[in-house]
Amino acid sequence: MSNSVIVIGGGPAGLQAAATLGNFGLDVTLVEQHDVLGGAVAQHQYQVLMPDFSSGPALVARLAGAVQNNPHVTVVTSASIGAVEEDQEGFRVQLEGSHPHELQAQAVVLATGFDHFDPRRDGKYGYGLFPDVITGAELEEMFAKGPVRRPSNGEVPQSVAFIYCVGSRDRQVGNTYCSRVCCAVSAKQSIEIREQLPKARISMFYMDVRTYGLWEDTLYWRSQEESGVVYVKGRIAEVTQKAGQPVLKGEDTLVRGPFEWPFDLVVLAAGMEPSQGTRLLSQKFHVDLEPHGFVQQSEPMRNASLTSRPGVFVAGSASGPKAIEDAIAEGDVASLAVMQYLKTKVVV
Amino acid sequence: MSNSVIVIGGGPAGLQAAATLGNFGLDVTLVEQHDVLGGAVAQHQYQVLMPDFSSGPALVARLAGAVQNNPHVTVVTSASIGAVEEDQEGFRVQLEGSHPHELQAQAVVLATGFDHFDPRRDGKYGYGLFPDVITGAELEEMFAKGPVRRPSNGEVPQSVAFIYCVGSRDRQVGNTYCSRVCCAVSAKQSIEIREQLPKARISMFYMDVRTYGLWEDTLYWRSQEESGVVYVKGRIAEVTQKAGQPVLKGEDTLVRGPFEWPFDLVVLAAGMEPSQGTRLLSQKFHVDLEPHGFVQQSEPMRNASLTSRPGVFVAGSASGPKAIEDAIAEGDVASLAVMQYLKTKVVV
Repeated sequence: MSNSVIVIGGGPAGLQAAATLGNFGLDVTLVEQHDVLGGAVAQHQYQVLMPDFSSGPALVARLAGAVQNNPHVTVVTSASIGAVEEDQEGFRVQLEGSHPHELQAQAVVLATGFDHFDPRRDGKYGYGLFPDVITGAELEEMFAKGPVRRPSNGEVPQSVAFIYCVGSRDRQVGNTYCSRVCCAVSAKQSIEIREQLPKARISMFYMDVRTYGLWEDTLYWRSQEESGVVYVKGRIAEVTQKAGQPVLKGEDTLVRGPFEWPFDLVVLAAGMEPSQGTRLLSQKFHVDLEPHGFVQQSEPMRNASLTSRPGVFVAGSASGPKAIEDAIAEGDVASLAVMQYLKTKVVV
Repeated sequence: MSNSVIVIGGGPAGLQAAATLGNFGLDVTLVEQHDVLGGAVAQHQYQVLMPDFSSGPALVARLAGAVQNNPHVTVVTSASIGAVEEDQEGFRVQLEGSHPHELQAQAVVLATGFDHFDPRRDGKYGYGLFPDVITGAELEEMFAKGPVRRPSNGEVPQSVAFIYCVGSRDRQVGNTYCSRVCCAVSAKQSIEIREQLPKARISMFYMDVRTYGLWEDTLYWRSQEESGVVYVKGRIAEVTQKAGQPVLKGEDTLVRGPFEWPFDLVVLAAGMEPSQGTRLLSQKFHVDLEPHGFVQQSEPMRNASLTSRPGVFVAGSASGPKAIEDAIAEGDVASLAVMQYLKTKVVV
């Protein structure tokens, strides 16, 4: 077990970390709680990814294939982490599931991802009450199954609203941070809806549009200029329902007027929170959390994967909301930190 | 030269890449055009870094020390890149400077950074005309030298305005993209100014405030709630001067009124553009550019450092605007890609 590593979490960050470590010849066990690999991309069946409109299934197939075909990587699915001990030899981790056994490793990578904010926790959105109010993740699942339809009656929506910052930047629900990707994901989704519905009215209700960096052109400008999506700066006070249609009540902060607009379909851009796995595993491995409950990056200017505990590393949205490409980069950053921790040298 | 690498650019991304490659035993030459290492952090003497208010000089000292003390890294400063050839052995690169010589390497990392947008290119800001209109980088230099003062008369400013998105998100100047960090850097600077000037009026003129992710709390909320900084959604039409004071003319898009406000000091949050080095080196190494002139990342979902050309990698803001911590992460991501390209294995 002189250079063995446990990677916990089979989403993009964990898959990348496991594949990279395996490529360099380290012995890796990848532990995933679900029965499939791919994290949120697989669970919500993302077909088309932000920012580059590339294929979600192709990404999962490539990342999962890279670990499954790697002789140095053992993949364990449908398994959870039991007791964890550390001694001079390294970590001893009890795996629970259909084949309980003990793993030993010198280093651990926490790639335990995020959970979406559940909009039921904020009654004003009517989520769970009105069938045509759905989350962005549910819209992705709808894209995967077929054309966009109103859940209430199966009809083609003539108007679609996106509500930004659901569960993010909102002290009332306890999440003061920004979830980074929801603005851009919503813009991507609006472009996809436009492709299906040339005549639908599509409106985005936002506080600030945060399609930062190079996402600005391909998502924000494009959604407005090519897809005719309308951005309205306004905070939604309440979603109600009238005559079988969700109604958005709020104030347009730019034209300074209150509004009450019906839509056929309302998409809640629900933010990202520390996953149950992140909360649980951070306790078992005794790593510090930052104030929101994400794993604290102890020295992000040195290496983004360092935690408060030597030998335990973090990658992906376990340390905060993150885009897929950033999670993949952090899988590599964590791999490198593990190799440096194990004092490896490379040979050509 | 079986595992030798040239890293071009001695900012955070290049320093990290060179140090990491050297730590793994690869032979690295780091080439920097200026006589000091540290990139923009050193050139503008950033004292306090976004997002964590850590020390800029300490970061540069650590990153530069890591390459200078590494027996596998040769540092060449005040040097530029001449002719580049590639044959079966790898790259042959002519170094120009006080000691011209040829370097040979199997892989190259372009870490050629960014240039700040020059606000002289957009006459409406009055930059270069009115002495109390300065850039964010010049404010950093002012912080390094002493307390904040009005350049025109050396007096303590009673009012400070920040204008966001100068040279960014602006089709008229040719830059449609967002520069990612200026919102957060301005928020950091406003907090620093408040520490010096408890009574000054500090106003931010923005389109969207993009303190994304976990920057939201420590920069945006903090600047408002602890530092009493006022955010005004409004685009500045023109900066003029009256009675020796810069005057901001524009429209407050939230309260829908035109305004004409004098300030003692105006800070332009100038965006990031592809550096001269990025433009020049991308030609010499024949790597594709994306539409704005940054180096195109060919497969960011696989590895952020891959370019259109095998053996040539990119790290940091050469591929687009980036925060320092992201540039450092990309230095590691590029190192890993180089090691994989050279088909190295690790030994413990």
